[in-house]
Amino acid sequence: MTNRNFASDNTAPVAPEIVKAILAANDGAAIPYGGDDWTARAKQRFREQFGAETDVYFAFNGTGANVAGLSALVRPWEAVLCPESAHLQTDECGAFERFSGSKVIPIPTKDGKLRPSDLEPYLKPVDVHFPQPRILSISQATEYGGVYELDELRTLCGFAHERGLKVHVDGARLSNAAASLGVSLRVVTASVDLLTFGGTKNGMMLGDAMCFLKPGLGSETGAFVQKQAMQLSSKMRYIAAQFEAMLAGDLWLKFATHANAMTKRMEERVRSIEGIRIARPVRCNAIFATMDHGAIERVQRDYAFLVWDERLPEVRWMTHWATTPEDVDAFAGALERAVSG
Amino acid sequence: MTNRNFASDNTAPVAPEIVKAILAANDGAAIPYGGDDWTARAKQRFREQFGAETDVYFAFNGTGANVAGLSALVRPWEAVLCPESAHLQTDECGAFERFSGSKVIPIPTKDGKLRPSDLEPYLKPVDVHFPQPRILSISQATEYGGVYELDELRTLCGFAHERGLKVHVDGARLSNAAASLGVSLRVVTASVDLLTFGGTKNGMMLGDAMCFLKPGLGSETGAFVQKQAMQLSSKMRYIAAQFEAMLAGDLWLKFATHANAMTKRMEERVRSIEGIRIARPVRCNAIFATMDHGAIERVQRDYAFLVWDERLPEVRWMTHWATTPEDVDAFAGALERAVSG
Amino acid sequence: MTNRNFASDNTAPVAPEIVKAILAANDGAAIPYGGDDWTARAKQRFREQFGAETDVYFAFNGTGANVAGLSALVRPWEAVLCPESAHLQTDECGAFERFSGSKVIPIPTKDGKLRPSDLEPYLKPVDVHFPQPRILSISQATEYGGVYELDELRTLCGFAHERGLKVHVDGARLSNAAASLGVSLRVVTASVDLLTFGGTKNGMMLGDAMCFLKPGLGSETGAFVQKQAMQLSSKMRYIAAQFEAMLAGDLWLKFATHANAMTKRMEERVRSIEGIRIARPVRCNAIFATMDHGAIERVQRDYAFLVWDERLPEVRWMTHWATTPEDVDAFAGALERAVSG
Amino acid sequence: MTNRNFASDNTAPVAPEIVKAILAANDGAAIPYGGDDWTARAKQRFREQFGAETDVYFAFNGTGANVAGLSALVRPWEAVLCPESAHLQTDECGAFERFSGSKVIPIPTKDGKLRPSDLEPYLKPVDVHFPQPRILSISQATEYGGVYELDELRTLCGFAHERGLKVHVDGARLSNAAASLGVSLRVVTASVDLLTFGGTKNGMMLGDAMCFLKPGLGSETGAFVQKQAMQLSSKMRYIAAQFEAMLAGDLWLKFATHANAMTKRMEERVRSIEGIRIARPVRCNAIFATMDHGAIERVQRDYAFLVWDERLPEVRWMTHWATTPEDVDAFAGALERAVSG
Repeated sequence: MTNRNFASDNTAPVAPEIVKAILAANDGAAIPYGGDDWTARAKQRFREQFGAETDVYFAFNGTGANVAGLSALVRPWEAVLCPESAHLQTDECGAFERFSGSKVIPIPTKDGKLRPSDLEPYLKPVDVHFPQPRILSISQATEYGGVYELDELRTLCGFAHERGLKVHVDGARLSNAAASLGVSLRVVTASVDLLTFGGTKNGMMLGDAMCFLKPGLGSETGAFVQKQAMQLSSKMRYIAAQFEAMLAGDLWLKFATHANAMTKRMEERVRSIEGIRIARPVRCNAIFATMDHGAIERVQRDYAFLVWDERLPEVRWMTHWATTPEDVDAFAGALERAVSG
Repeated sequence: MTNRNFASDNTAPVAPEIVKAILAANDGAAIPYGGDDWTARAKQRFREQFGAETDVYFAFNGTGANVAGLSALVRPWEAVLCPESAHLQTDECGAFERFSGSKVIPIPTKDGKLRPSDLEPYLKPVDVHFPQPRILSISQATEYGGVYELDELRTLCGFAHERGLKVHVDGARLSNAAASLGVSLRVVTASVDLLTFGGTKNGMMLGDAMCFLKPGLGSETGAFVQKQAMQLSSKMRYIAAQFEAMLAGDLWLKFATHANAMTKRMEERVRSIEGIRIARPVRCNAIFATMDHGAIERVQRDYAFLVWDERLPEVRWMTHWATTPEDVDAFAGALERAVSG
Repeated sequence: MTNRNFASDNTAPVAPEIVKAILAANDGAAIPYGGDDWTARAKQRFREQFGAETDVYFAFNGTGANVAGLSALVRPWEAVLCPESAHLQTDECGAFERFSGSKVIPIPTKDGKLRPSDLEPYLKPVDVHFPQPRILSISQATEYGGVYELDELRTLCGFAHERGLKVHVDGARLSNAAASLGVSLRVVTASVDLLTFGGTKNGMMLGDAMCFLKPGLGSETGAFVQKQAMQLSSKMRYIAAQFEAMLAGDLWLKFATHANAMTKRMEERVRSIEGIRIARPVRCNAIFATMDHGAIERVQRDYAFLVWDERLPEVRWMTHWATTPEDVDAFAGALERAVSG
Repeated sequence: MTNRNFASDNTAPVAPEIVKAILAANDGAAIPYGGDDWTARAKQRFREQFGAETDVYFAFNGTGANVAGLSALVRPWEAVLCPESAHLQTDECGAFERFSGSKVIPIPTKDGKLRPSDLEPYLKPVDVHFPQPRILSISQATEYGGVYELDELRTLCGFAHERGLKVHVDGARLSNAAASLGVSLRVVTASVDLLTFGGTKNGMMLGDAMCFLKPGLGSETGAFVQKQAMQLSSKMRYIAAQFEAMLAGDLWLKFATHANAMTKRMEERVRSIEGIRIARPVRCNAIFATMDHGAIERVQRDYAFLVWDERLPEVRWMTHWATTPEDVDAFAGALERAVSG
């Protein structure tokens, strides 16, 4: 039977390569809290992929990595600028504000992407009456399935650094973005100061990584925020082994390329269906589309997916490493039947 | 080759029964964030073991469960009373203070156990100048490998409730305590308000559980603190499946009984060695002993374990589900050789 | 010489009636931390003005009162909705987020006032992924010198309560609003749950008051948040005596009426000046106006006032209890000269 | 009638010299938030008294100054070591923990004073599992009315700095200590990094000062923590003018010397009374004494003072700038009558 869940890439099971890595790590005693060999090797893989200066601390989930990582870089009277669609702003239940004491300043965007002109009005002279912007946080891929082009990133990071901001990339779906752009992880994170690199949405069981990409950036703080943010796993090897597998053989790329291709296939199948309008550029593993309420209701009898915005209504469909062409085709068929009533 | 790591029960690999449960859960799509069937079944197992009112929220690790659980019960001007040896006080890097804003009040003890007379001096009339004690937090088993007897628990919990305190049990090693006492999990947590039940030290890969044992206690708060404390796993099924396996067939008891027995075996082997003094009652899966610095150094060439207190010096040896009689006997032999120079 | 500072009502000195009250309180020993007679009498005056259920805690300043008061009503996973122009959002350096751990959700407005339709999009079903709105915080008078009419307040508070929100009024300039509306303090705060009532901008030396207006609302929390938010004065009588004087003889009304009248006089003088456009309705003691950069520069050689928005540019002029008709007329003359170059 | 309140030095009224300074400051408009002339002059006085590098930020009260000042120097995974009798630990309702997220580590002492040997056990190698000690906080005078001798301070500060700690002095009663030691404020704070200098207990209406005594220590943070900790007064001149008066003419010394002398007089009167035992060295403006419950009850019919420890019982009597010899003699007489039944 085909998989009928297009709600999110976190509905997917764990990929067999990852399972294998976990099982291989399950071998005898190991030093806890990251003193083990798997952790050492996984960190080496990160340095290979992201640069020799990369300082990595693992976290359990994306919220943990975002909150701990950002907290290492801000003081409580400093603020984080992000798109108002950022996961940090909309989906982390204020964990960052609670843990760090800092303010998040959400900036309206049309497409989930920020440009220098969006930031300008928030960058005022130092004033004790308002938290001082210190970090620019963007998502690559964006929460709308978009990607920043390399030149957009260069311009934006350059502007941010000029204005005294550090740049954080929420990379829950960085792999999908890099695959879409056809570049390495290192190229897609050039100029970035802090990356949170997610594995859960790309075939892992669980695990995220705070990567301080500039020399010294996390050296006094990374390990402490990891621990204090409740993200230090005692049996670290089981997270490390997954990342090792993901990065050692470009498994991340294989999975992300597949997921993106399945979404592209869906786009092709759906584009011609009357009654469905693809609402945003399709760049990674998500499609946002509008269709009428009745059709949504009909197709949701058999399929799971999110209604992103009830008012339009706009829906989101996601694919992942395990989505098959058959899953996509069956879904496209169901959509077609649903819109035709 | 025998296992030469007696540093902690978190150096152990994952038990095969748990691996099997994880693999079984790796089957197709699942609703994320705990909406899946494994989570539903695991929660049912908790209710069977701890009572029908039990309200369970999973966490990634013990620090996460302690911090999130306690934060659900205190306001920032309220305080937690605990032994000064509590994991909460000594090993969580102030995560509770940071996340909750509340104060931890550590109370000196001889053996890691609190009695009503220890608490009395801290229970003063309401006064805005000092955080009001609101929670009594104890560990069962204790950080010194001891256990509270059932009548001690009854007396202590009764006293705490009379004086307006709620009772939290840090149950990172609750299974070992229950096995040692020969009672069910429910009996050993009678009168307790909040339990944090650990699986990682008893054969799981990772996972802890906040269990609100009184009706309504966590109903408005549990899910929010779980999320805000960065403990909500998107692929929850992989934690839930482990707990389901642990509780469904009393696997927890099998593992804990074995770990305790291995420590008992070690106690028997070591008791007669001249130059080693067992420093505390041996009740679960840890031995605390004193021996001279030279002997420690010699045995640590081949074996890993903690020097708990450099000054005496006092060492700690732990066993776990995977420790074998051969491991123990080999270690006892090594100890004997080490002390005889 | 006339006063040439129209920057804010907090540039004013302390009114003689307030000085007299402070000196009268400076008499012998007094019980500290609010156990004194002046505090008792001042609290009684609040109950007379705001209703018999009013539970009052003094603070040093408006930020302290806002942060402590709101913190008494929210849990860290709950949020405060406010206009994006709110002092809480723009001028308190994130103190609320840091102290409470909660999120502030700023809502765009045209005039600093919120209506039910502005709130509606933020009131979604319970979802652990986002902080739950729990408080509606509005300013009366608004930061733009506007006021909510009584029927607007009734409608807005009714809507908020229906939707499970409590209502906070930032009353740094409540006196000016009540004077403008011609109603009592009680009438202008009907339906409000928490009021922070400011004295500093209306002739006092310093002092703000958290007023819990509904029975029981602050009874378990008010005193603790006052202390923990560093707002509990040991020599409380000197704050209390000021409030006693303000409320005993309707001094608040006298000062606010005068300040409003001075602004009205300025409006009349300025309205006819070509090159100055009054940009917002003038209701209390502030005028917002646009004029060209050169004119601003010329008049600022002799007068102090804020450029609110550099881009238009829009300026703000404020009057207070001590502003004289001569001050206003001289300023209007200076403005006229400045715009004519 | 004589003053019958010996409960605390904060029961005193405001000294006439201070009142005069406040009234003199009440003159026309002033720039708010510390941009005024009084603030500039008061800061200059601090530099004269404490050294040219002194960077001062005013606060409303001692808790505010302690919390804001310390928060400028610690990160949330760093800890403050202090005597367990410290005001920070016992009387600030956990404000520091809540605001900073950091841990306070209270150290038992006999007399409220710390020595290097008390600190040694808390200074362990870096370990992410426990908050790293970063600040040593001591009180001068101590909460038991004692003082650190200059050589004790030198030794303690030298030890702290060697071990990577910064030194904070809670100087709520620094004036009394300096007067008792017969040295300048600068000498008594040599080697100190952060001083919180209190005025309220020595004749002021209200006001405390965070003084960063080392170059650059507070330069990026002082103003922000002052604001974010809700300690930034809009009408700052009224606090600044008080400090200006205190420091310009050594008024601090006159008041403290007097208060100390009154306590010394009381000690002399009381020493010979049978049934009263002076329990601690009398160095400043507090006497700690033991006497029986009945006598306490009898004398408390007419006099206010604290029972410090109910169990002994031990009481505390304090004098201040306004205590007269007649007050003291009358109280000594009352004590004599009370103990003789």
